[in-house]
Amino acid sequence: MTTLQQQIDDLLAPAHGLGGLAGDRAMLALALRLGSDGGKRFRPWLFRTVHQRLRRSHTLAQERTVDRVAAAIELVHTAFVVHDDVIDNDDMRRGRTSVPGWFRTTGPSADTSYAHAGGILTGDLALVAAVRGFATCGAPAEVTEALLDLLDATMQDSAAGELADVRLSLMADLPTSAEALSVAELKTAAYSFVLPMQAGAILAEADPWQIEQVTEVGRLLGIAFQLRDDLIGMFGDEVTTGKDPLGDLREGKRTPLMVHAAQTRHWWRIEPHLGDPTVNRIEAEQVRRALLEAGSVDYISELIAQYVARAHRLASTIGIDDCVVRRLTEGWDDALQRADGVSVA
Amino acid sequence: MTTLQQQIDDLLAPAHGLGGLAGDRAMLALALRLGSDGGKRFRPWLFRTVHQRLRRSHTLAQERTVDRVAAAIELVHTAFVVHDDVIDNDDMRRGRTSVPGWFRTTGPSADTSYAHAGGILTGDLALVAAVRGFATCGAPAEVTEALLDLLDATMQDSAAGELADVRLSLMADLPTSAEALSVAELKTAAYSFVLPMQAGAILAEADPWQIEQVTEVGRLLGIAFQLRDDLIGMFGDEVTTGKDPLGDLREGKRTPLMVHAAQTRHWWRIEPHLGDPTVNRIEAEQVRRALLEAGSVDYISELIAQYVARAHRLASTIGIDDCVVRRLTEGWDDALQRADGVSVA
Repeated sequence: MTTLQQQIDDLLAPAHGLGGLAGDRAMLALALRLGSDGGKRFRPWLFRTVHQRLRRSHTLAQERTVDRVAAAIELVHTAFVVHDDVIDNDDMRRGRTSVPGWFRTTGPSADTSYAHAGGILTGDLALVAAVRGFATCGAPAEVTEALLDLLDATMQDSAAGELADVRLSLMADLPTSAEALSVAELKTAAYSFVLPMQAGAILAEADPWQIEQVTEVGRLLGIAFQLRDDLIGMFGDEVTTGKDPLGDLREGKRTPLMVHAAQTRHWWRIEPHLGDPTVNRIEAEQVRRALLEAGSVDYISELIAQYVARAHRLASTIGIDDCVVRRLTEGWDDALQRADGVSVA
Repeated sequence: MTTLQQQIDDLLAPAHGLGGLAGDRAMLALALRLGSDGGKRFRPWLFRTVHQRLRRSHTLAQERTVDRVAAAIELVHTAFVVHDDVIDNDDMRRGRTSVPGWFRTTGPSADTSYAHAGGILTGDLALVAAVRGFATCGAPAEVTEALLDLLDATMQDSAAGELADVRLSLMADLPTSAEALSVAELKTAAYSFVLPMQAGAILAEADPWQIEQVTEVGRLLGIAFQLRDDLIGMFGDEVTTGKDPLGDLREGKRTPLMVHAAQTRHWWRIEPHLGDPTVNRIEAEQVRRALLEAGSVDYISELIAQYVARAHRLASTIGIDDCVVRRLTEGWDDALQRADGVSVA
């Protein structure tokens, strides 16, 4: 078995083209490394786990195929992350320089067009390598076709989720609860959970009903993860999460957490700070207190618990509860602590 | 034979995903239509022409394959154009609203992040559909593999060319002549000429030496076209070209035309206006006179003639001179007229 990074590097290795502009090619190659290197490799792990649990037989050819699809799934993530950082104009990503940020600091000027060009083009190269990885994974033709259908559906879902996320953050009115949940589902669950899990089931040549169950488990888990991420974004500890504790508030994300709070009498304490680029730590603490007192944290925690419970039940019927759902949600009840020790999830 | 637009629509048809956010999906579907509709369909034509001339046999399966690759080639163009408009922040493209421009006018606010998100995501969907079109064209496995290699090389070339183009326009120093020509080659020739022509030859299962010749003809023609486009950008008539006659000057593109002029004693008449966003028609006319008097127009015209002559010679050896090179460069000697009737090419 080759390592995941080797597989990723294989997919990213430039084919022989016209040549020239070696410096610009080197920049793009370095950016692809920066964008695809490190990380938790969560999605390839999820894909392999589901595949191993559901597969019926095992051949050497399949192993090469599994390696290639795992790398392609990671590269879809790379492409989305890099393009997301261009869209949000983020020079940092979880405490490290983002790809557009890296282009900005190494480019001929701090001009945004170079950072954006670098980010867009790097994401494009990752995306093409990812599709190619699926298309040439070596599975039987109808399995490859099903994987490409899945990738296509994932792209459509994620694009709609990302576009809605940006749209909602620019609208004066808050979305409905259902719309905010749809964004969580399509922006996160689709490519981070449904794609790897369904790909694992398809490659395992699981029964159609199993593939359907796997998809639903992925959807439920994905939404639960996004809701929890929203809570961590407001209440998490910077050291543990690596996230800017004011980032979500500053960006004014219309999360289900905020949509709930807007329907309570505490909203006036929160609204002025949502999307305020100059929000400070004291104001953020006031928002946190208001969210707790409005019952929004309890509401979202309860919602998470419901999604996880449904994921447990469905996952049990196809034998992926212990290896996927339990493994991923272990310790959720006590992991999310506020600085003063009050558990919020 | 299905029409090109039908084939494009087939490739863009969303697969069945998670559902939800119908409005955002409709926006992306409309943007894909806007981005892929109309246009001269020049690249599919070039691909078909080379393929028809070089192919040895003809079956129904091949025809379906040809249609699909033609659509995929057009979608590569769509993706590049849309992402290019995001990078250059262009709300217009040849007299029509660009995809990011359309998102800006239909979005919740005139905020750039929504226009950029819409453009990036639309281009991503077009790109994935294009790769998929190549991967599932139905050609024999080794032919499909060669097509995917070509697409990969094209992506690497075009990305390097585009990045260099942005980089050079931000640098204080002008590039060398060789570097400016490399940008023309990689940004334009690679995907607009080499990709369609080489794809045509690969699908025709032409001999390796023929494929090599076709690639070189595409490279030469592509550079000649870009050099001519630079002249038209400065001297062309807005009504005929559909291009903003001040656009190239305003963007400060470091074209080989400008690099030549910089080496002459007329440069001081040009330099202050290159990259000036407020440049007016009188100043543009001064720049045009200076470029003529500096001999830069003659120099570029001569260069174009040399590239075309080499393309003619090579194309003759593989029988694509009349149908490709002559057809494309017909009337070049007299078509490019200045408003005052002085021929510049």
